[in-house]
Amino acid sequence: MLEVGIVGITGFTGLELLKLLINHKGVKVSYIASRSETGRKVSDIYPLFEGVYDNVIEPISVDRMASLDAVFLALPHTVSASVVKDIYDKVRIIDLSADFRLSSVDEYEKWYKVKHPAKDLLRNAVYGLVELNRQQIKASRIVANPGCYATSVILALAPVASYINDIVIVDSKSGVSGAGRAAKDGLQFCEVNENFKAYSITGHRHIPEMEEQLRRYNNDITVEFIPHLLPLQRGILSTIYASLKERANVEELYKDFYKNDFFVRVVDEPPTLNNVRGTNFCDIYPYYDERVGKLVVISVIDNLIKGASGQAIQNLNVIFNFDEKEGLMPYPYYP
Amino acid sequence: MLEVGIVGITGFTGLELLKLLINHKGVKVSYIASRSETGRKVSDIYPLFEGVYDNVIEPISVDRMASLDAVFLALPHTVSASVVKDIYDKVRIIDLSADFRLSSVDEYEKWYKVKHPAKDLLRNAVYGLVELNRQQIKASRIVANPGCYATSVILALAPVASYINDIVIVDSKSGVSGAGRAAKDGLQFCEVNENFKAYSITGHRHIPEMEEQLRRYNNDITVEFIPHLLPLQRGILSTIYASLKERANVEELYKDFYKNDFFVRVVDEPPTLNNVRGTNFCDIYPYYDERVGKLVVISVIDNLIKGASGQAIQNLNVIFNFDEKEGLMPYPYYP
Amino acid sequence: MLEVGIVGITGFTGLELLKLLINHKGVKVSYIASRSETGRKVSDIYPLFEGVYDNVIEPISVDRMASLDAVFLALPHTVSASVVKDIYDKVRIIDLSADFRLSSVDEYEKWYKVKHPAKDLLRNAVYGLVELNRQQIKASRIVANPGCYATSVILALAPVASYINDIVIVDSKSGVSGAGRAAKDGLQFCEVNENFKAYSITGHRHIPEMEEQLRRYNNDITVEFIPHLLPLQRGILSTIYASLKERANVEELYKDFYKNDFFVRVVDEPPTLNNVRGTNFCDIYPYYDERVGKLVVISVIDNLIKGASGQAIQNLNVIFNFDEKEGLMPYPYYP
Amino acid sequence: MLEVGIVGITGFTGLELLKLLINHKGVKVSYIASRSETGRKVSDIYPLFEGVYDNVIEPISVDRMASLDAVFLALPHTVSASVVKDIYDKVRIIDLSADFRLSSVDEYEKWYKVKHPAKDLLRNAVYGLVELNRQQIKASRIVANPGCYATSVILALAPVASYINDIVIVDSKSGVSGAGRAAKDGLQFCEVNENFKAYSITGHRHIPEMEEQLRRYNNDITVEFIPHLLPLQRGILSTIYASLKERANVEELYKDFYKNDFFVRVVDEPPTLNNVRGTNFCDIYPYYDERVGKLVVISVIDNLIKGASGQAIQNLNVIFNFDEKEGLMPYPYYP
Repeated sequence: MLEVGIVGITGFTGLELLKLLINHKGVKVSYIASRSETGRKVSDIYPLFEGVYDNVIEPISVDRMASLDAVFLALPHTVSASVVKDIYDKVRIIDLSADFRLSSVDEYEKWYKVKHPAKDLLRNAVYGLVELNRQQIKASRIVANPGCYATSVILALAPVASYINDIVIVDSKSGVSGAGRAAKDGLQFCEVNENFKAYSITGHRHIPEMEEQLRRYNNDITVEFIPHLLPLQRGILSTIYASLKERANVEELYKDFYKNDFFVRVVDEPPTLNNVRGTNFCDIYPYYDERVGKLVVISVIDNLIKGASGQAIQNLNVIFNFDEKEGLMPYPYYP
Repeated sequence: MLEVGIVGITGFTGLELLKLLINHKGVKVSYIASRSETGRKVSDIYPLFEGVYDNVIEPISVDRMASLDAVFLALPHTVSASVVKDIYDKVRIIDLSADFRLSSVDEYEKWYKVKHPAKDLLRNAVYGLVELNRQQIKASRIVANPGCYATSVILALAPVASYINDIVIVDSKSGVSGAGRAAKDGLQFCEVNENFKAYSITGHRHIPEMEEQLRRYNNDITVEFIPHLLPLQRGILSTIYASLKERANVEELYKDFYKNDFFVRVVDEPPTLNNVRGTNFCDIYPYYDERVGKLVVISVIDNLIKGASGQAIQNLNVIFNFDEKEGLMPYPYYP
Repeated sequence: MLEVGIVGITGFTGLELLKLLINHKGVKVSYIASRSETGRKVSDIYPLFEGVYDNVIEPISVDRMASLDAVFLALPHTVSASVVKDIYDKVRIIDLSADFRLSSVDEYEKWYKVKHPAKDLLRNAVYGLVELNRQQIKASRIVANPGCYATSVILALAPVASYINDIVIVDSKSGVSGAGRAAKDGLQFCEVNENFKAYSITGHRHIPEMEEQLRRYNNDITVEFIPHLLPLQRGILSTIYASLKERANVEELYKDFYKNDFFVRVVDEPPTLNNVRGTNFCDIYPYYDERVGKLVVISVIDNLIKGASGQAIQNLNVIFNFDEKEGLMPYPYYP
Repeated sequence: MLEVGIVGITGFTGLELLKLLINHKGVKVSYIASRSETGRKVSDIYPLFEGVYDNVIEPISVDRMASLDAVFLALPHTVSASVVKDIYDKVRIIDLSADFRLSSVDEYEKWYKVKHPAKDLLRNAVYGLVELNRQQIKASRIVANPGCYATSVILALAPVASYINDIVIVDSKSGVSGAGRAAKDGLQFCEVNENFKAYSITGHRHIPEMEEQLRRYNNDITVEFIPHLLPLQRGILSTIYASLKERANVEELYKDFYKNDFFVRVVDEPPTLNNVRGTNFCDIYPYYDERVGKLVVISVIDNLIKGASGQAIQNLNVIFNFDEKEGLMPYPYYP
């Protein structure tokens, strides 16, 4: 049994990691740490774990982390990089923050408006999108788990990226769990329920991730990205509009690109969030609109699973040679 | 007091007309008709009207309609046109169906896949978007009340239509009341709630309305339109992406275009559905994204009010020289 | 035109007062005050009022209040009583807080666990449930607007109160707007949505209101009251279980009791929140279960209208001899 | 590996069985049958199963069922009993319908208003509430899986049943999935969302189950039961009010009664649906209200898991000596 730790348990990604790892056959979660809730039992914060996982939350400790096989960091950006500095040569790291997703310090500091606390380590990190980087992930000490929106967009565009002409329009819609678990103005029930809005219109931080990854296929790609807030718990649907340099059999391109990837399904009907809620799947529907001559791609993921904690476990499975599905066998939420 | 009738009361637009007209100071709803529920009281179908509006639902009768000052038709397409044929010279008509929205019979028959039952009357109709056609509406015997999506899109684009270059991308999201009141597969609570999807991807019937109206300003406009279903009762938010032939002071263009229109507000912050739910307002936020060189416009309406029944009453007010706000003073739903 | 003020605008009851009073034909809202948002426009806080009500929020001022015909206090308890002390002889007061609902200082201090800041004024106040106290309200300087749960329960029990034997079980369910507008832990969307819970099990503060009012009819009445939080914006449904001393024609009792009350409807089918959402109605359905020998009463109200701001305006209408319906003509929200 | 079948896959209980059994280590679902969808793949109806479970739906066949180790019947009542007649001596049966829950034919025919198609088999059935009947379930050929409401109520009352005096008031609230998957009037999104109602006020069919099971402890128990419809997918919360013959240490009674039951948790805080959504747990909170002298018990379950398909698998585990938790390790849905 692998011994793993989760650092950061008060947010939804830490919680989701624990929910999933409890059913992982090769892993024991022997360390749960938090900056703020040490000494309490996990089940005191989350009554759903009573009798299931009652372990006590510990402080963040380099020694404790170093004794593990792998550690998941579910911490805010910059906090995460500071922890990584202390442990990157002692334990395999899967970092769910944004700190190691961009290869360029300048881009990071431009978009996040903070100094990077561990810029020398950027070259040790790999972008943990398994479907694109499976081999590099195996070898890397630091896996930068992708952003939720970025996952839904990069997977939806990679197969046709080299065909793309002009700016790609990405209109994404996410459930509220993407905004985290802390009480914030604007996330109260009476503000969100029966409401809908666009946000981060002047520039969302997942844009540079999308552009960096997609430019590996086509250096001219620029993304116009507008995220929206859906009045529901979980799920991201991205509707993507692109012009192609030349006509292509897009369905075939997609099916071929993902033919060895269990967790990406190229589907024949426009997918809904019900397809994937509670699972690690990304369902993608490409459609070429003859009337206007545009490619439309619709992708759906569960933002907390394929968009965060499920993908993190998929990365763990790759690193440690587990079956990629281990601990991730779909338990779809619908209804 | 004007005597008006509502023909079609079992759907949401008929219901909303009645809800609004009850508080209209210049109008008495003296006739409610339906094909299916004759003989029952309105309050038997809608308990919310008990003690408020208990009138009996009558059959559809040309004589009864001819005795009124105006009639609202809240009927399915083709059914509506058949009724219009019998009454267009007897009473002022505000038709909430799609039958008189397109000036071209061919376009109508291509998109709706039926024969038009009254094509000779098309030239007597005006597209009832008050902000664009106020004068023509006054004079017209048949007002074709615009589609809900079309309203949100045409108002959002008219001020810059002549600047637009290339295909306009329109990504719209609507609440479930837009799909009507009848029980349908796919509209059950457990399908819609916590879910989100795109639909009518191969071509939605509001596209030709949008293109016809916008081509009055710029004959090159083509719209790529994808509607989505939000898990909420009412409201449409459209996110629109366009390229401009040249830079323009878009905020000024919008404010100037709508300077005399009470019901269109050009707003300084991205609007949410909470801005307009329960009201006849359309709030519009134009934003020029310098990074990618695209105009983004966000518009919100209440699909049942500005997108249907409120706009119909606004048309009535124009025709009969009431204050345009009469019966439409906002009663916003938030929270 | 009556000049009225709303003191407290950052919460839902102040907002709802303004929404309703804008359409009241006999009233002008010439004063909006707040402790925290002075200097901002109302429409800066609530974009829905842009172009409709853009007045500036003023500080709380005795002079300004004294210059009005009536003032609505939408303030927290104790804050409200402190304001009342300064103005009770200068202007008619409708107080939406709990400060003047109980006639006994001891009960107040026991349930609210604070000293009452103006206990000498309690005798000047009347419990503002119009259907029970219409005449006293006309004459009173301070109207204590009832609690939302209390309204739904007292109206549902008053007609049979004298028949009641044993403890009354009241199981109430309220929408989230009842908990106020401020961001609070536990009211975030992801906590409330898809969830349901009981709360205040050890004793909710509306209990003494219910018992005081019902004991006017029957001194033996004790209420076991458990409130629950519904994942929706607005509405209270109370399910009430009682034993009767003797059989009675309950339907007749109810219809007779409310025969002159427009805003209470004794209905023939179990009511849903859709009956009353957006209106000042209270719909009541009494049912005698022969199998077990219990009276079951179901009542529904909109917690922000009949349960708060609508009832406050109904009180204003009574005081100033307006038609009781003025400004309260139902604008039901469904759908 | 046990070979099992699911008969009835178009409803939510059949779907939930399959979702759960896919992760059961001792079971293979080798037969899926339906009356209406034969020949289609399961994943054609439920896209979430694409690539996961693509088996073809077969007709209902006695031979096929007889070749299995166990069969789950997720069929309407009477249809289920007709199938049971043909197979009860050939295969172990777990019946999710109501057909074998009541020991009395008369009670069945009174509440369900149909003839029982297999009354001679009633004596071969056991009421499959594991916590009460674990030993009998092992031996029985037909396990009658309890009703969802009944599960939430019987578990909440069994520990104190012998203390109960007078009529028990049960006020239950259920999510919409309890009403099934078929499109029905009244279950459309726009009717249910933002709404709340009581239903089956004149007598719900789960009452005789509750009374029969509870009368095993105390023959005087009568239940007044009112169910309500919550605007959410899944979960039942029952609030129960009872008088006790004498004071008892209720917390101790409950903890002792369930000391060997993993899936019942006696909790120290009032539980919410979030405690149990997605799991097979029943969380129970007993509270004695000294002020009025009443016992209040709150219980929560997931209606599709502990209230239906999870409990069915728990029964399978008992029959075949699997660990009772097998296939049911909690995968809580929150958030």
